[in-house]
Amino acid sequence: MTQGGDKKILVLNGPNLNMLGMREPEIYGTGTLGDIEQKVIAHAEKLGYSIDFRQSNSEGELVTWIQQAGRGNRAIILNAGAYSHTSIAILDALKTTDLPVIEVHLSNIFAREPYRHHSYISPVAAGVICGFGDKSYILALDALNDILV
Amino acid sequence: MTQGGDKKILVLNGPNLNMLGMREPEIYGTGTLGDIEQKVIAHAEKLGYSIDFRQSNSEGELVTWIQQAGRGNRAIILNAGAYSHTSIAILDALKTTDLPVIEVHLSNIFAREPYRHHSYISPVAAGVICGFGDKSYILALDALNDILV
Amino acid sequence: MTQGGDKKILVLNGPNLNMLGMREPEIYGTGTLGDIEQKVIAHAEKLGYSIDFRQSNSEGELVTWIQQAGRGNRAIILNAGAYSHTSIAILDALKTTDLPVIEVHLSNIFAREPYRHHSYISPVAAGVICGFGDKSYILALDALNDILV
Amino acid sequence: MTQGGDKKILVLNGPNLNMLGMREPEIYGTGTLGDIEQKVIAHAEKLGYSIDFRQSNSEGELVTWIQQAGRGNRAIILNAGAYSHTSIAILDALKTTDLPVIEVHLSNIFAREPYRHHSYISPVAAGVICGFGDKSYILALDALNDILV
Amino acid sequence: MTQGGDKKILVLNGPNLNMLGMREPEIYGTGTLGDIEQKVIAHAEKLGYSIDFRQSNSEGELVTWIQQAGRGNRAIILNAGAYSHTSIAILDALKTTDLPVIEVHLSNIFAREPYRHHSYISPVAAGVICGFGDKSYILALDALNDILV
Amino acid sequence: MTQGGDKKILVLNGPNLNMLGMREPEIYGTGTLGDIEQKVIAHAEKLGYSIDFRQSNSEGELVTWIQQAGRGNRAIILNAGAYSHTSIAILDALKTTDLPVIEVHLSNIFAREPYRHHSYISPVAAGVICGFGDKSYILALDALNDILV
Amino acid sequence: MTQGGDKKILVLNGPNLNMLGMREPEIYGTGTLGDIEQKVIAHAEKLGYSIDFRQSNSEGELVTWIQQAGRGNRAIILNAGAYSHTSIAILDALKTTDLPVIEVHLSNIFAREPYRHHSYISPVAAGVICGFGDKSYILALDALNDILV
Amino acid sequence: MTQGGDKKILVLNGPNLNMLGMREPEIYGTGTLGDIEQKVIAHAEKLGYSIDFRQSNSEGELVTWIQQAGRGNRAIILNAGAYSHTSIAILDALKTTDLPVIEVHLSNIFAREPYRHHSYISPVAAGVICGFGDKSYILALDALNDILV
Amino acid sequence: MTQGGDKKILVLNGPNLNMLGMREPEIYGTGTLGDIEQKVIAHAEKLGYSIDFRQSNSEGELVTWIQQAGRGNRAIILNAGAYSHTSIAILDALKTTDLPVIEVHLSNIFAREPYRHHSYISPVAAGVICGFGDKSYILALDALNDILV
Amino acid sequence: MTQGGDKKILVLNGPNLNMLGMREPEIYGTGTLGDIEQKVIAHAEKLGYSIDFRQSNSEGELVTWIQQAGRGNRAIILNAGAYSHTSIAILDALKTTDLPVIEVHLSNIFAREPYRHHSYISPVAAGVICGFGDKSYILALDALNDILV
Amino acid sequence: MTQGGDKKILVLNGPNLNMLGMREPEIYGTGTLGDIEQKVIAHAEKLGYSIDFRQSNSEGELVTWIQQAGRGNRAIILNAGAYSHTSIAILDALKTTDLPVIEVHLSNIFAREPYRHHSYISPVAAGVICGFGDKSYILALDALNDILV
Amino acid sequence: MTQGGDKKILVLNGPNLNMLGMREPEIYGTGTLGDIEQKVIAHAEKLGYSIDFRQSNSEGELVTWIQQAGRGNRAIILNAGAYSHTSIAILDALKTTDLPVIEVHLSNIFAREPYRHHSYISPVAAGVICGFGDKSYILALDALNDILV
Repeated sequence: MTQGGDKKILVLNGPNLNMLGMREPEIYGTGTLGDIEQKVIAHAEKLGYSIDFRQSNSEGELVTWIQQAGRGNRAIILNAGAYSHTSIAILDALKTTDLPVIEVHLSNIFAREPYRHHSYISPVAAGVICGFGDKSYILALDALNDILV
Repeated sequence: MTQGGDKKILVLNGPNLNMLGMREPEIYGTGTLGDIEQKVIAHAEKLGYSIDFRQSNSEGELVTWIQQAGRGNRAIILNAGAYSHTSIAILDALKTTDLPVIEVHLSNIFAREPYRHHSYISPVAAGVICGFGDKSYILALDALNDILV
Repeated sequence: MTQGGDKKILVLNGPNLNMLGMREPEIYGTGTLGDIEQKVIAHAEKLGYSIDFRQSNSEGELVTWIQQAGRGNRAIILNAGAYSHTSIAILDALKTTDLPVIEVHLSNIFAREPYRHHSYISPVAAGVICGFGDKSYILALDALNDILV
Repeated sequence: MTQGGDKKILVLNGPNLNMLGMREPEIYGTGTLGDIEQKVIAHAEKLGYSIDFRQSNSEGELVTWIQQAGRGNRAIILNAGAYSHTSIAILDALKTTDLPVIEVHLSNIFAREPYRHHSYISPVAAGVICGFGDKSYILALDALNDILV
Repeated sequence: MTQGGDKKILVLNGPNLNMLGMREPEIYGTGTLGDIEQKVIAHAEKLGYSIDFRQSNSEGELVTWIQQAGRGNRAIILNAGAYSHTSIAILDALKTTDLPVIEVHLSNIFAREPYRHHSYISPVAAGVICGFGDKSYILALDALNDILV
Repeated sequence: MTQGGDKKILVLNGPNLNMLGMREPEIYGTGTLGDIEQKVIAHAEKLGYSIDFRQSNSEGELVTWIQQAGRGNRAIILNAGAYSHTSIAILDALKTTDLPVIEVHLSNIFAREPYRHHSYISPVAAGVICGFGDKSYILALDALNDILV
Repeated sequence: MTQGGDKKILVLNGPNLNMLGMREPEIYGTGTLGDIEQKVIAHAEKLGYSIDFRQSNSEGELVTWIQQAGRGNRAIILNAGAYSHTSIAILDALKTTDLPVIEVHLSNIFAREPYRHHSYISPVAAGVICGFGDKSYILALDALNDILV
Repeated sequence: MTQGGDKKILVLNGPNLNMLGMREPEIYGTGTLGDIEQKVIAHAEKLGYSIDFRQSNSEGELVTWIQQAGRGNRAIILNAGAYSHTSIAILDALKTTDLPVIEVHLSNIFAREPYRHHSYISPVAAGVICGFGDKSYILALDALNDILV
Repeated sequence: MTQGGDKKILVLNGPNLNMLGMREPEIYGTGTLGDIEQKVIAHAEKLGYSIDFRQSNSEGELVTWIQQAGRGNRAIILNAGAYSHTSIAILDALKTTDLPVIEVHLSNIFAREPYRHHSYISPVAAGVICGFGDKSYILALDALNDILV
Repeated sequence: MTQGGDKKILVLNGPNLNMLGMREPEIYGTGTLGDIEQKVIAHAEKLGYSIDFRQSNSEGELVTWIQQAGRGNRAIILNAGAYSHTSIAILDALKTTDLPVIEVHLSNIFAREPYRHHSYISPVAAGVICGFGDKSYILALDALNDILV
Repeated sequence: MTQGGDKKILVLNGPNLNMLGMREPEIYGTGTLGDIEQKVIAHAEKLGYSIDFRQSNSEGELVTWIQQAGRGNRAIILNAGAYSHTSIAILDALKTTDLPVIEVHLSNIFAREPYRHHSYISPVAAGVICGFGDKSYILALDALNDILV
Repeated sequence: MTQGGDKKILVLNGPNLNMLGMREPEIYGTGTLGDIEQKVIAHAEKLGYSIDFRQSNSEGELVTWIQQAGRGNRAIILNAGAYSHTSIAILDALKTTDLPVIEVHLSNIFAREPYRHHSYISPVAAGVICGFGDKSYILALDALNDILV
């Protein structure tokens, strides 16, 4: 993770988010993850932040990125996808950092299958935002802007 | 409910939210519900919306207000407090309206007692925002601004 | 509750039933609660009963009405709506009266979400009728006619 | 199953209903199944229907009768007794027919042991009527009269 | 069921007990059901009873036999096999008779799979004897001898 | 709530307690709530306290009264009746006050239906007293006398 | 069961499979059980096996057929339909034979209601094949061909 | 147990209560069991009762003392400590006596670990008092005074 | 435990069985444990066995007696009373001996509270006999007579 | 993933399948994964398909391979091993593709530990085949041959 | 408990451990508890500690010994055997002392029956060591040596 | 994995253990994983073993390392961290090796969140050691020294 100023925010995306726009558009919409990245960067710029935007299908890689987040980032926006519901390892990684974390989801996970209603991550997040598509990320940035002041 | 333009948003607050600033400040902060109302009105004004801001300790009154929401409002922001976890009646009231609903909570309900992790309301909400104090309401307004466009 | 003859039947309707005809017509049909009231009164008349027909969104008000039912009524037909599934208070109110109670539902609650399959009220009802729309009330009147003889 | 007019209704009774009047009279009353059959036939006649009234202790026979119901019947009234709570086979048989089905019980099953509160049959029934003794069957005929119009 | 004296005992055997000696000898031993019948008749004779010994793989047939048991029998010894764990219909049939019932099992059902630990029949039996192979039946006869005096 | 001296105790009674003496006397006895109020006032007088004694069938009203209890009262004695088992809103209201709370029940709730064994209120009460009829209130006063010293 | 050569395979079909082509075609397709029988016989012939193809709605009859399978058959292909999920008696019958058993289902039972996800039969089957319509039977024949070699 | 007048009350204390004042003072306070005994004796004297005050760490010894309580005692005050939550044997012992029993706890067991929320003893107690420290015993004496009159 | 011949049987009775005849006669009858001891000794004599008959309210003492059973006894008849449902220690003690064990109960434990339906002891017993009062012990002796031959 | 013709099938193997022949031969047999690959390729050739056969111990890598399956493959045969029971990420990956998926297992997972009975993958598979060792793969190919026609 | 130096360690053994070497050697090995005591004393001596080594089958006695442990001991090594899984009383006794406690088991309790997987004691122990036979005690001594420094 | 002598022990550390000393020091202490490695190597040297000490955040990599452990190692010490509670894949990998495995944890997992109380790994480990910080590893080495002799 390259060194950045103290105004960088790490945005992490979990498994299958790289397939956005190609999968289940009735749930996730037609935009791609690249589209979201552009919107996030643009909005962050307005708020005076830079963005380190990443995606991985690997639970271990997400764990490692979270562990390293403290080097140069001020906060984490995390959409852990399916790992939200199964990964205690990611929860533990989040506990290794003092950075504020905001959990986001594109879809309203509470309107889906019961096994998506529980997230191991939520209890250590500052807050949770779900159901607004890519707007979820923008709202998370705004929320962080308040927290980081 | 007085007639309003087609740019009004109904903001409903459930039981005990009238005690904000007086109860458990380590969880809910020191601002009052009046403070939140002012911030919400101010932010809505910037977005071109007016606000109908209400609070009730009565489940039945909340049900009635939701039923009447369609007269003059464009959307509902709902912090049903404790009733989120126990009221199927409020869920049913929300189903009687076509207005988009955003569920908000001041605290991160997933970091609290297990009986606060489940909300009857979430499945019919467009999205859920929790954990950001009064900022949760502001983010909900921004989210609605996208949805209502 | 006004004094009535000894041939009056109290018909109580719980939360959101005042929205009939305006909500989820695929489940509840397009008739209004007023339509049901008219049909119930007409049918009761044939059987020689008068009707006290009420609706409330308030659990407490329903409790109070049930407590007062003994003054002038011979029986209760109760569609407690969502409160059927959450209200021990209504159950306790029903225990305070010796009047026969028939539980009715417009929809077949057993074909819906699991949390609608259990009713606190059923064990103290004489019987349960559900799934026949407004006809459920008419059948309840016929059933009462047998019981009250 | 003999051919009948298009105004015949199949009334099926499950295990132990042949013992009516001989078992647990405090729950089921003192009338026999033959008494019920007579009342059902008489009431159906008034409504312009004929009745095919049957009882079996065999789950498989009930399945077969339901499969054949479409030959000459307009609807099914089903009191599956104990099989209501254990038979997925009867549920599947009901799914093979387009006839409307009404589930009836003599006793209020919700006031009895917990394992009698769940019925596999209810979700595919048009409606459920329980607790009114033999009157449950009569009410079911009236309900069908509405549905079949 | 032929008429018998008032000293006859009905011994009913459920599904697969006709396969005794041919199945899982490590659990059930090598004797056949015919062997058991002979031992039961011989022992009953000593006690002054005659025996009506039957087996069926059909739940419905067992229900029917229990319903008819009152005609000429003084008591029932019931090894319902697998139906012990799944049949509410047999439980209901047992409730239609005033005869004392003793539940027997060849094997110790509590040392086997969890789904064999619960029997619907036990609560209405006078007592339960299991784990002693064909001796379970003999002990049941002795127990009945006390009860019937 | 009228202003009182600093020696007033708020006694709150939940749904159906206004029916005391008229309902299930085998559980609740034959005295009325008015009888209890007189006994409580008389005993409080001996201890040097005045009493504000109230009853409501409305969950919301109970919430409001608890919120306002701090104005002039030194403690709360709460018999929330059925709401004890279903109301998180009342629990939250109790958290808004620093007054000591004693939970009372007329009957021994642990000897009744399982859904009456859990009370949302108990964890925030100073203590729980149940099973002694109207004496439960008198004991609560004595307990408060110790706590308030 | 007639005597056959040592190359016969018993194919058993449980309740409602006789209705194939007439029920829920979106789940089960439009072919009849007779169609399946023809395909199975034709494919078996190629592999050098003859087929004894049966269907019953009766749990007891299926139990009996399984008990007798050892007389002349080399293996069993079993589609127990709804009884897969409720019948310990069929499980026990399967334990009385040394023949290899293959469990088949037309539909993917794991994509249906939760109560269809568990089969009492699976643990004693050699293997399970589900979701391929009538092809499930053909695959089972191929699998047996390997096992029986 | 020595013979006493008909005005003696048995006060039984279960495991670890002999360590009072030495363990977890934030939960149990700093007084010893001897202090409680003195207060109980003094208060009982005022009411005209004598006290037999005992403590044991042995479940069996508590069972025995309860069995013998009928010899000379009028009632039992029982703080069974941890055995409240695990001992069916003590429950059974209480059923062997006709004496009224009051269950007391020093701490509010409902504000502690979930496994302390259930007491086997409560259903057979006249009432339950918990959370008031040694005052719990004094209140129990007062309650008994009413019951024994 | 005194040395005995190789024809001695240890009969152990758990908590509260010493109260037989004094407790819940509607469940346990009016005979005392001494009466049972006499009947057991008399019947054992006929079979050629002597009896070591004991009772304890202490789980630990029962454990110790079972550990020592191998010194001079041929088998154990165990009525562990309430400890049947809670004691893994007694289960473990039974595992330390090679003697056959028969579990007996006076009452039909399956017709009582759910927490009496499970016994830790059953899986290691040769068999279980319950519901026949003191006859349960006699039947156990007869069963042992078969096993010990 | 290299470009292939439109007749290629992706065969994916999850964790520990690379150890086949070296682990638990009583469950999985003595053949290696290489042996299976050869058999699969040979059989596919007969059917006119080519095979892309892969194995990974990494959940993330399996997710990625499934995401990329659409590039050149016609279907997926998936033995996800232990990840079948724990991976929602693989389930989500499968939802991103329109290719038919067949779930296979070497062993009969329903005859093993309970935590192997549930598979997140099954509901989105066309069908499931388990228990036939390497033959499971061959049957899956045959099944696909029908589906892909 | 005699006074000792400040270098004594209390080693407590629960029910049935006195039978070591005589019971289930495939689980517990062939050494006796006396053998373990000798090894523990010898190893403790090397570390400069003396040992107070005890065993009891009585839950109450174990409670008492733990209560008294503070008199002369520096730490407790506790193998509570079966009471680990059922005794809240022992848990409470451990809370009365400030001594470090190490929980040991001879066998790996997690590889045994489910009811042995949970220990009430573990949460208050400094650590847990299980599965190493008598070596578990030696390792506990070494662990204490670190803690006590 | 480089070839080693037959005296090498593989020490595997799972996710987030690389963050030791940087995360939650109140739970895990201030030492780093490198500190532990040094202590383990030093202690192993005394016992005559060499150490292959590894850490990975990747479940798949841990699976692979365990599969390869047999090449040159005598045993495995495994601290799988969060994967202990979620990974059946690691459990399956452990089953592919004959090497003895000891499960260690720095913290007492039984004193933490309920989802950390269950480990998939424990049933196949020789033993479990938890709660002693880095000393847990040293004790595991000592335990292995006994096992490997």
